[in-house]
This record gives sequence, structure tokens and C-alpha cells, in this order.
Amino acid sequence: MNEVAAGVDLGGTKIQAVVVSDGKVVGRARRATPRTGPDAVVEQLAASVREALDDGGVCLSELAAVGVGSPGSVTRETGSVSKAPNVFGSPDEVPLGPAISAALEGVAVAVDNDVRVAVMGEFRRGAGRPYRDLLGVFVGSGVGGGLVMHGELRHGRGNAGEIGHTTVKPDGRRCSCQRDGCLEAYAGRMSIESTARSRQNKGHKTKLFDIMERKGRDRVTSSVIADALDQGDRITTELIDEAVEALGIALANAQNLLDLQAIIVGGGLADRLGEPFVRRVEVAMVKNLRLPDQPPAVLPTELGDLSGAVGATVMLEY
Amino acid sequence: MNEVAAGVDLGGTKIQAVVVSDGKVVGRARRATPRTGPDAVVEQLAASVREALDDGGVCLSELAAVGVGSPGSVTRETGSVSKAPNVFGSPDEVPLGPAISAALEGVAVAVDNDVRVAVMGEFRRGAGRPYRDLLGVFVGSGVGGGLVMHGELRHGRGNAGEIGHTTVKPDGRRCSCQRDGCLEAYAGRMSIESTARSRQNKGHKTKLFDIMERKGRDRVTSSVIADALDQGDRITTELIDEAVEALGIALANAQNLLDLQAIIVGGGLADRLGEPFVRRVEVAMVKNLRLPDQPPAVLPTELGDLSGAVGATVMLEY
Repeated sequence: MNEVAAGVDLGGTKIQAVVVSDGKVVGRARRATPRTGPDAVVEQLAASVREALDDGGVCLSELAAVGVGSPGSVTRETGSVSKAPNVFGSPDEVPLGPAISAALEGVAVAVDNDVRVAVMGEFRRGAGRPYRDLLGVFVGSGVGGGLVMHGELRHGRGNAGEIGHTTVKPDGRRCSCQRDGCLEAYAGRMSIESTARSRQNKGHKTKLFDIMERKGRDRVTSSVIADALDQGDRITTELIDEAVEALGIALANAQNLLDLQAIIVGGGLADRLGEPFVRRVEVAMVKNLRLPDQPPAVLPTELGDLSGAVGATVMLEY
Repeated sequence: MNEVAAGVDLGGTKIQAVVVSDGKVVGRARRATPRTGPDAVVEQLAASVREALDDGGVCLSELAAVGVGSPGSVTRETGSVSKAPNVFGSPDEVPLGPAISAALEGVAVAVDNDVRVAVMGEFRRGAGRPYRDLLGVFVGSGVGGGLVMHGELRHGRGNAGEIGHTTVKPDGRRCSCQRDGCLEAYAGRMSIESTARSRQNKGHKTKLFDIMERKGRDRVTSSVIADALDQGDRITTELIDEAVEALGIALANAQNLLDLQAIIVGGGLADRLGEPFVRRVEVAMVKNLRLPDQPPAVLPTELGDLSGAVGATVMLEY
């Protein structure tokens, strides 16, 4: 067997691990992200790697390295992560890489930002393979992004890619970043949930929360939103219309400035709503392009919810 | 004497030529852009180069090459230009490079886009010298821009840099590109003029057009706008306030996505309004940044209205 690597996408709700051999996924495992702090997260993350190795019939001793995509602010040199309270329960720095390495018999561990890692996954192994200049935008709980230009991931001074905080409407809806009118305030799942709830509290009728409860969820997941859309729920339809328009503006602004070859639209919500959603975003983008007859390719992800985990193994190659 | 080159900035109102030796401007000349078609433009452009040579005490035979920055769509391989009706009276293709070469005894001529050339001027010889990653935004009749990343001008598929057509306000003011809410519709001089005129026609009082006439101008130039601001004209003050806010949004969107080291704010209007205007734009940008404590340097141009002509000589080095 050739070089074997594991990749892990550490998210606020789940930990997705894959084992990759020769660029192919040979094993996978998924676990819920514990809510009891860094030690429990590291334990479950290491367990997910062991489970994915089992799934692929690979021994830990055969593993060359583990790549991890994490939310928050990542110091790649040390593998430590801060500002990821959704995962670790506090914004304090966590020595994630060393802790995972210790839990996996000293295997080499590299950590990078979750969104950038997912963009690299799609660029090298997914929908971005034919291109050298692309933007990946991930529409999930929030909205993240990453740029590849001339075949290289753009870091800037360390914080490039924040398309989620493009202002799409001055003085518009309040965002989690405390500014107004960001893309994320319109297209992020958490903002869609809170906006729907506040409209319901104002007396507007929506089935969204009934659907959530019937599905046994405690939050409005992407599949809850998809079901509400299928049932023609008016509030949900309006909110998704607004998300599409906001994405159209933000992607067109990026395209007008950068003249990219392709834009890949992924993330939990976009993956769940699928190709029709991506096509609607494309139409909303094209009408805001300076050169509407020269649009970039607008594509769904190929790896779906494995973009991040596969991308975490791609990162090990650099 | 070392390598001598000439650079020309071809604009809708003026032709600015410089002669550069060892990176220093040794001669310059400025002429009005004729309004009688391509032949007259080529004649005046060649005359401006000869005049700049005279000014620098350099013979045409000593000239290594001429660089030209032109509006419109430039085919660099052939030196031809199309879609520049403001200069040539029609959008048809003009073989600008070969025609200039023929008018200057066969000297080598290279042509590139005026805004990109000006960005290269500031990057290599002006305010951008300390940086490798920057955005130049030129606020003049319209609003143009150019990006330098990793020390190289970004072309994309040929049309990168169009920050003037960032949507800053959905369904906002109509732009010359026929879309609504572009940065250029708020910050471009021509749009400021037409918006002021339409407000005046609706009964709002403004001194802007009186000042224009007193100065003997047939359009609202940057210095007319500056005088109206100095006199506290309310409409002009409002329009410049809106321009500043629009620039703040567009520059912050670019910064959030690219995490640049510096943004250079130039062009006729910004140069005329000077440092105080650039500082106001900076403040408006910072409040829209995701990381307001890590802003890029925001700088006026160093070369002022010579950015383009000097940049046209820089282009010859590549």
C-alpha cells in the first residue's frame, strides 16, 4: 500500500474523518462533536481517526500523517487553535495538533483553517480540478470562503477569504460579527434560523419550527430548511430568496474584482439544497456582473460534506 | 545616459507624457486630447512625446521604447484598442501602438490598460513601493482599480480590477454600466455631476454649476467639486459623503476577501481632494472590516497625475 494519510474536518456539530490512500478515500467515520471542552474533542477526534482506519483496513502504524481542518484562528506552525468557542466552549488557545498527536501514538499532525482546507479539497480532488483561479464559498452555519489564485491558496496576511463578511446591504440585517448587512447575515443557516424566529415572534406564520420539532432537532438544520421549502413555507421561501440575492451580489463583487475561472458553492446548506440552489445563485450573480457574457463557471462541490476532510489530507502534501 | 523611455497616459481630456531615465522623470508634456478621431489623437500623442523629449533634452534616436496607457479594451500583443469612445469618438478598434510607432520613426510601442498601468506606476515608483500585495483604486470620471498580488499585477482572464462596479447598494443609483448601485455611481465624477444636476432640476439649490461657469468649465471638474465643498455647498457635501461611504464599503469588501497590505486611493478627484479625503475613506473602510484592528495601509498616490505616464514606462520593463 502507498502513502496513507488521514484527514479530519472538525465542525461545531460533527467530526468527519477520512483515510486516503493514493488520493482515494478508503475509510471514513463520523462522530458528534462533544460539548464538554477540548479534552473530549481531542478524544473523539482521535477515536474518529481510529474508526476511519478500521473502516479502511489500515493500521495506525501505516499512517504517514493526520491533517485537521479546524474553525477559529489557527497557528499552522504550532498546530494551536484559538477563537473557536463553538467547538471548544471557550475562545482560549488549544494546542490541538500536539494533543491529537499524543492521542495517536505520536503521528505527525498538521492543522489549518477548516474553510481553506475545504477549498483545497475541492481544488485538488473535487469540482475545482480543471481550474487554477477559483473562489470556494461555503454556506453552512455561517458563510466562509477561500481563494485559489495561480494554483495557490491565498492567505494574505493570514486572514484572506472572508467573503461571508462582504457588505451586501448597507444598514442591513445584523450579523454575528456585530456589523450590519454582511452576506452571512442573509445566507448563513444560523442567521436564517434567528430571523425566522424573530418574524414568527412578530406574528408571521411559519412551519419551520414545527418541521424542526417533528424531525427531532433542536435547531433549524439544512434539511429542516429544505423540507420547509418543499412545503412552500412562505417565510422560509423569502429568506432563501434573500440568501440567493445576497450571494449573487457578493460573488459578483468578487468576480468583478478578480475575474476568476470558477466559483464553487458548497457547505451544508448549499449541498443540501443542491444543484437548483447553485443555479439560482449563478443567475443572481450574473445579473450583477460587469461582463455578464463572461461569467465564471459556477459549480456545486463534488466532494460534498467530505470537502473538508479530504482537503485536510491534501494540505499534508504541501 | 542610461536607458531612456517615454510613458504616455492617454485620457479623455488630456494626454500626459513623461520621459524617464534611470527611473527618474527627466521630461514631461501635457496636451489636450483632440475630439476629432484616432488620427488626431495619434498625432497629438506623438507630439506630446516629442515635447517631453525636448523638455528632457533627449533625442528621439536615444529613446528605447514608448509605453502607453489607454482606456478601453487593449490587446497587448498587437497594441490595438477598442471600446474607448471617450477618446476615439467610436468604440471601433484602433491600431494605436503601430500608429504611434509610425509617427515616431519606428520606435517600439507597448500599450496596456490605463488603470493597470497607473497601478504599476504607484507599485514600482510611488506609494506602493514597500508592499507586494495592494489594491489601487482610481477615483476620476469613473472609478477604476488594479490589484497587485505577490508582486504581480493581476489580470485574471483579462478583466480583473473592476472595483468600480462593486455593488455597494442593491437597487441604488443607476451606473453608467446600466446596473444599479455600483461604487462608480456614487464616487465617479461624472455620476456626481449628473446626480447634482438632477437634484437641482428637482428644485434643490446648489452652487456647483455656478462655480463651474465662473471657472469657465463646461463640466464639473474635480477642482469645481473641491471649491463647492470649500464653500459648504450642501448638495456637493452630501454627494461626497455618499462617495466616501460607498468607497468604504467597496474597499472593505475587497480587504475582507484579500487581506491586502495596502490600498492606494488616487485618480483626479481623490488627488484633488487630497489627504483629508483619503483619511475619510479609510475611516469608512475600517468600520466595514471584519478585523478593524488589522487594517491595510490606506495611502494617497505619490505620483499624482503622473501615475499613469510613469506606470507606462514601468510596463516596458516586463
